[in-house]
Amino acid sequence: MADRKIISIDGMGGDNAPRIVVEGMERIAQSHPHLDFLVHGDEAQLKALLTRAPTAAPRVTIRHTDKSVAMDAKPSQMLRQGKGTSMWNAIEAVKSGEAVAAVSAGNTGALMALSMFILRKVEGVHRPALVGSWPTRKGVCAVLDLGADIAADAEQLVEFAIMGAAFARAVHGVQNPRVALLNIGEEELKGHESIREGARLMRESGLPIDFRGYIEPDKIGYGDIDVVVTDGFTGNVALKTAEGIARMISDMLKDAFKSGPLSMLGALMVMPALKNFRAKMDPRKTNGAVFLGLNGIVVKSHGGTDDVGFAQAISVAAGMGDSSFRTEVEENLRRLAPVAPVGPAEQVAH
Amino acid sequence: MADRKIISIDGMGGDNAPRIVVEGMERIAQSHPHLDFLVHGDEAQLKALLTRAPTAAPRVTIRHTDKSVAMDAKPSQMLRQGKGTSMWNAIEAVKSGEAVAAVSAGNTGALMALSMFILRKVEGVHRPALVGSWPTRKGVCAVLDLGADIAADAEQLVEFAIMGAAFARAVHGVQNPRVALLNIGEEELKGHESIREGARLMRESGLPIDFRGYIEPDKIGYGDIDVVVTDGFTGNVALKTAEGIARMISDMLKDAFKSGPLSMLGALMVMPALKNFRAKMDPRKTNGAVFLGLNGIVVKSHGGTDDVGFAQAISVAAGMGDSSFRTEVEENLRRLAPVAPVGPAEQVAH
Repeated sequence: MADRKIISIDGMGGDNAPRIVVEGMERIAQSHPHLDFLVHGDEAQLKALLTRAPTAAPRVTIRHTDKSVAMDAKPSQMLRQGKGTSMWNAIEAVKSGEAVAAVSAGNTGALMALSMFILRKVEGVHRPALVGSWPTRKGVCAVLDLGADIAADAEQLVEFAIMGAAFARAVHGVQNPRVALLNIGEEELKGHESIREGARLMRESGLPIDFRGYIEPDKIGYGDIDVVVTDGFTGNVALKTAEGIARMISDMLKDAFKSGPLSMLGALMVMPALKNFRAKMDPRKTNGAVFLGLNGIVVKSHGGTDDVGFAQAISVAAGMGDSSFRTEVEENLRRLAPVAPVGPAEQVAH
Repeated sequence: MADRKIISIDGMGGDNAPRIVVEGMERIAQSHPHLDFLVHGDEAQLKALLTRAPTAAPRVTIRHTDKSVAMDAKPSQMLRQGKGTSMWNAIEAVKSGEAVAAVSAGNTGALMALSMFILRKVEGVHRPALVGSWPTRKGVCAVLDLGADIAADAEQLVEFAIMGAAFARAVHGVQNPRVALLNIGEEELKGHESIREGARLMRESGLPIDFRGYIEPDKIGYGDIDVVVTDGFTGNVALKTAEGIARMISDMLKDAFKSGPLSMLGALMVMPALKNFRAKMDPRKTNGAVFLGLNGIVVKSHGGTDDVGFAQAISVAAGMGDSSFRTEVEENLRRLAPVAPVGPAEQVAH
């Protein structure tokens, strides 16, 4: 059994906090007996909610604060005024070593800015990246950067590959993650220079990573690649496009199912068969994106999630906290170091 | 009634050509009595198929050629060896003025390269763009560039906006298209410089275009924007991501519906209600992407489409051919000309 681990939690972040935070802790406490929780937020509210969370309650320490980050707060404003908020304190507890990871369902921009400010980048990483889990026919794959930054050059893509592979091992339990760079398909128009150069660096790096070249966005769902690497602008566009299409299809299906007595009856009959489908496409099951490349683990939960989704975000934090993510990334960055500055005359080995 | 229009057709392009080509012509011939067809390809095969296409047959002229472009041919190879192929000849007929537009379901890269080579860019357009139709809750919107090129600077984005608006008017019948630039949402991380600069140019251009600022990818499906403008790399990623997710969901639904007698019966009962949904998400209904910015109209059909999809691609060509697309684009490009070189001290009016 693993050692006891403390997860630091922003008790007030998210549309339905602190209720979903406490319910999420209760849920995860049952399946993860080695976790304890350091929760930042309004003590009275949290205490009241914890009376209905018998498994989690004895393992929760509340650290009171009146202040929290508004869902629409500007990141720059929070850098100046965010000290003492439940979000700030949640991250601070990772920095101080009290907790192995922090989880927040609060404002993404503020969480990103405060995490960067408080935890600072790991030496050797040029840009942090936001990694998330993407449903596929066969399970799930990791996609990064989902928008921590807008651009990435070739070396940064390689760093993302290193961090993404370590994430897939830590959180998805994939022993030898297959890694690919996101690219578009027209043979003679193959993506940006940075992507082609990134592929060359990956091939020549000697990294212990199973690099599979390029993947087109429509192939992500096949589940043959475990880590999809791209810059933050492109990754965010892909993520939001996928979310938009999935939501549109789901809404239209619901409308169709409700459109009359016959289809309602039919829908009832189809429901059990749709269970597996719904489980796979349930955004709560893939909740929990991680800021990689900082001196500490911060997990971002969807703001609108419920207890199931928040529990999933905590389990991502626990997976990262239990893993050798940091050691693996540091070793691979060291391996990379001598390869990075490359001669202009070298060929793309494709 | 509109004047008679001739559409030039690559009879041999596509996975199921020439069958779907002839069946598609037969279908569109019934609804579009003013169209005639100049078809390039194997005369014997086409003639045999036309015996089963009584409406189209009297309006078809076959221009025989033995040569066609392989679906996996390299674009550069086709530039050297493509002369005399059914695809080449189909485009050539637009250049010579015999036809108002060309349609091909063949190799995208080759079609793009040959179209550029034969028709050349319109004066004033820096990059051609591939525009396609994207399903929304309320109907359809135009998205460009879907991958004619990989990059676009601010001025080119404005050119895309001009061409996209004219396309939406010509093909989607939207009188005053609402135009937006695709961007990601984090307030203080708003996309690339080219996008912010493009938005500024749009606002200051005085163009008769209803410019609505930025749109995030997950909002495209709402149907509140008629023309979504982005660079070709991003547009292609969004398109392929959407296709991949839609296909994954559709496959999983089919599996669920077939998973047992109860769900099969339920699926039968739901089917009528799903008709509208399936019609909206049917990729054949949005088939037909257009290369904009060339001296002539070329429509690219999906290679794997059937007669319904090919007919749709022909109707896109007819819509463009019947429209004042070219005049509108030329007028707006002229309006744009004096605005393009801007002073560095000007403010972003956001």
